[in-house]
Amino acid sequence: MSSLTTSTSERTPTVGIVGGGQLALMTYQAALSLDVPVVVLAARADDPVARVATSVLIGDPGAAEALGALAERCDVVTFDHELVPPALLEELEAAGTVVRPSAATLRVAADKLAQRRALEAAGLPVPAFVEVTRAADLDAFGARHGWPLVLKAARGGYDGRGIWIIDAAVEAAPHLEAGLPLLVEPHLPLERELAVLVARRPGGASVAYPVVETVQVDGICHEVLAPAAVSADLAAEAQQLAIAIADLVDAVGILAVELFVVDGRLSVNELAPRPHNSGHLTIEGCATSQFENHLRAVLDLPLGATDLRAEAVAMVNVLPSGTALRPLAEALACDGSHVHLYGKQARPGRKVGHVTATGSDMDEVRARARAATRRLVAPVADDAGLGRVEVGS
Amino acid sequence: MSSLTTSTSERTPTVGIVGGGQLALMTYQAALSLDVPVVVLAARADDPVARVATSVLIGDPGAAEALGALAERCDVVTFDHELVPPALLEELEAAGTVVRPSAATLRVAADKLAQRRALEAAGLPVPAFVEVTRAADLDAFGARHGWPLVLKAARGGYDGRGIWIIDAAVEAAPHLEAGLPLLVEPHLPLERELAVLVARRPGGASVAYPVVETVQVDGICHEVLAPAAVSADLAAEAQQLAIAIADLVDAVGILAVELFVVDGRLSVNELAPRPHNSGHLTIEGCATSQFENHLRAVLDLPLGATDLRAEAVAMVNVLPSGTALRPLAEALACDGSHVHLYGKQARPGRKVGHVTATGSDMDEVRARARAATRRLVAPVADDAGLGRVEVGS
Repeated sequence: MSSLTTSTSERTPTVGIVGGGQLALMTYQAALSLDVPVVVLAARADDPVARVATSVLIGDPGAAEALGALAERCDVVTFDHELVPPALLEELEAAGTVVRPSAATLRVAADKLAQRRALEAAGLPVPAFVEVTRAADLDAFGARHGWPLVLKAARGGYDGRGIWIIDAAVEAAPHLEAGLPLLVEPHLPLERELAVLVARRPGGASVAYPVVETVQVDGICHEVLAPAAVSADLAAEAQQLAIAIADLVDAVGILAVELFVVDGRLSVNELAPRPHNSGHLTIEGCATSQFENHLRAVLDLPLGATDLRAEAVAMVNVLPSGTALRPLAEALACDGSHVHLYGKQARPGRKVGHVTATGSDMDEVRARARAATRRLVAPVADDAGLGRVEVGS
Repeated sequence: MSSLTTSTSERTPTVGIVGGGQLALMTYQAALSLDVPVVVLAARADDPVARVATSVLIGDPGAAEALGALAERCDVVTFDHELVPPALLEELEAAGTVVRPSAATLRVAADKLAQRRALEAAGLPVPAFVEVTRAADLDAFGARHGWPLVLKAARGGYDGRGIWIIDAAVEAAPHLEAGLPLLVEPHLPLERELAVLVARRPGGASVAYPVVETVQVDGICHEVLAPAAVSADLAAEAQQLAIAIADLVDAVGILAVELFVVDGRLSVNELAPRPHNSGHLTIEGCATSQFENHLRAVLDLPLGATDLRAEAVAMVNVLPSGTALRPLAEALACDGSHVHLYGKQARPGRKVGHVTATGSDMDEVRARARAATRRLVAPVADDAGLGRVEVGS
């Protein structure tokens, strides 16, 4: 159907989520508070939201049949991840399914090359880049910008996967041979990395969240701090840039805009057309969480305020050092931290949860969130010989 | 079993909740964040938590068979309501089930006569009262304290049910004939009504929440305001009194203590040995919600901080005027309010949700929560002739 009825006095529209990970889980949690029905298409029965939701389809989100089954059971389709072939979504749209964000938005936002081209064409700041199809492309780019370079897969990368720092074109050979679309950019001297979330309704109404700083280690986000320690001018510019990009790609729902700061200037690293790790701290840290605003946006309901609820908010990802977490009691004994565990099997480096702390001093708040996280991820007793892991330091 | 293992590196203990209402729903939501498995014993498949949880038993919480089935599927049994025969819980305990709060605590806390007697015997302040078994008891009490009197059923009352204001003994006849245990107290000139929640672990460690004011209309809680506008001394006294009562009845989990203020002095109205309507504002308003601390307490995990997260927090119950709510969009357009809907069919006077607002000024915050609530409960278009309902004013 092409329009939604959002009256609680009639049947509340059902939201269908493609993907069963922690983003879907936290979106589901937000849906429980508003009594919004949710149906999930998860790849596996033990995916975080598939374990706890009552309406779950198990299937391949890249298969037309599974997507069609989801579309039949909901009023609007949205996403936990962007790894869905846009052509399949176009077929759904052609058949009358409401897809938010749309297939057209996902075509741009889920592809790093398409993103860069669209942003550059609109005159928005992006790092220098070229598409790479052969080694000569890298040699030419390296001669111009210097080595090392950052080679990226245009699609499918996350948490450091699909990104390679290379010192010579020969290192790109296996990726070139794999035949996937690639782009290259300079290895920039980043002052810091920022992110801005925008929630946007189908008609274009949008709200931007406060600018956060993301602390990355080996391409994996370890910590997020709000507000980012940047000037008010730079923060305002980042929010305006994020809203302009949301308008440009006609985003609906949450759009995460990751930004580099180089020489005091912003450039756009990449986009994610869905709730995002950089916004987990909005659950306790903002007037309305990114998950609730994602639901509101895809249901075309009024958006909620995004103000920070504390002077300082820090989130630390729970990245295990082994295949088990330590007892929850130890983390909860670190008072003043909000622990979120996603029900995922621990594996080294896998994001299985996060901890948020709020307060008035960033150093104190960050230390508090780190302390609780360390108590979850430190090696369990039987492999104490591995030593303690300092997360995000 | 008689002890719980609370390690996330082993199987997390499963919490069994007796009752499927909104208190169970919000406890379930808190459990999702901590990845605590929950199984629910609900009377009906359309009870709020039964609609959304994956492990649900449908059965009579007053039947040994249903309680036994719940006990088999969990490591600790706790409660959404106290309408469970204590004798059945004693049988469960005798068979080795961990019941928190215990049958002994429920024997006292779920019976208004038993509460009053225990508190009086401990020298704690309670209103004058006597058990009523015949009309002469009322005449004697009325001669001493004046009319009208407040007659109460010792068990099973809530939201104004089981409480009758009577001007003469003859009005009590139907209740006396029903044969249920009754008590009577003076119709006190209440300055205000307060509530204090205590979260308490099996070993006795406890935390008290900030004192809240409850605004009752015809025995139904319409609004809760935090902090209560009372002196610091009275607030501290209320918290100490609540902790003393939690110790006295050996509460585990949340214990709600409802207090009267008469002539500037506190007396205890009643107890509820579970999460409570007066604590819904802790979800957004306090460092740790009553629901998370209830789970932590019954799992014997460290308790979380109870500090208010704002200078003023107001909660307004969603009490419909008819059999439908108005469109959610209208309430969400009242920015800065947190809407919680329980998935219950609207009926006049039935609590089907609540709205919480936080800020720096109580009047402003209360107005904001009321505005969003009014937009949910005002008559829908087809019965606009009934006029608008002002909630809690």
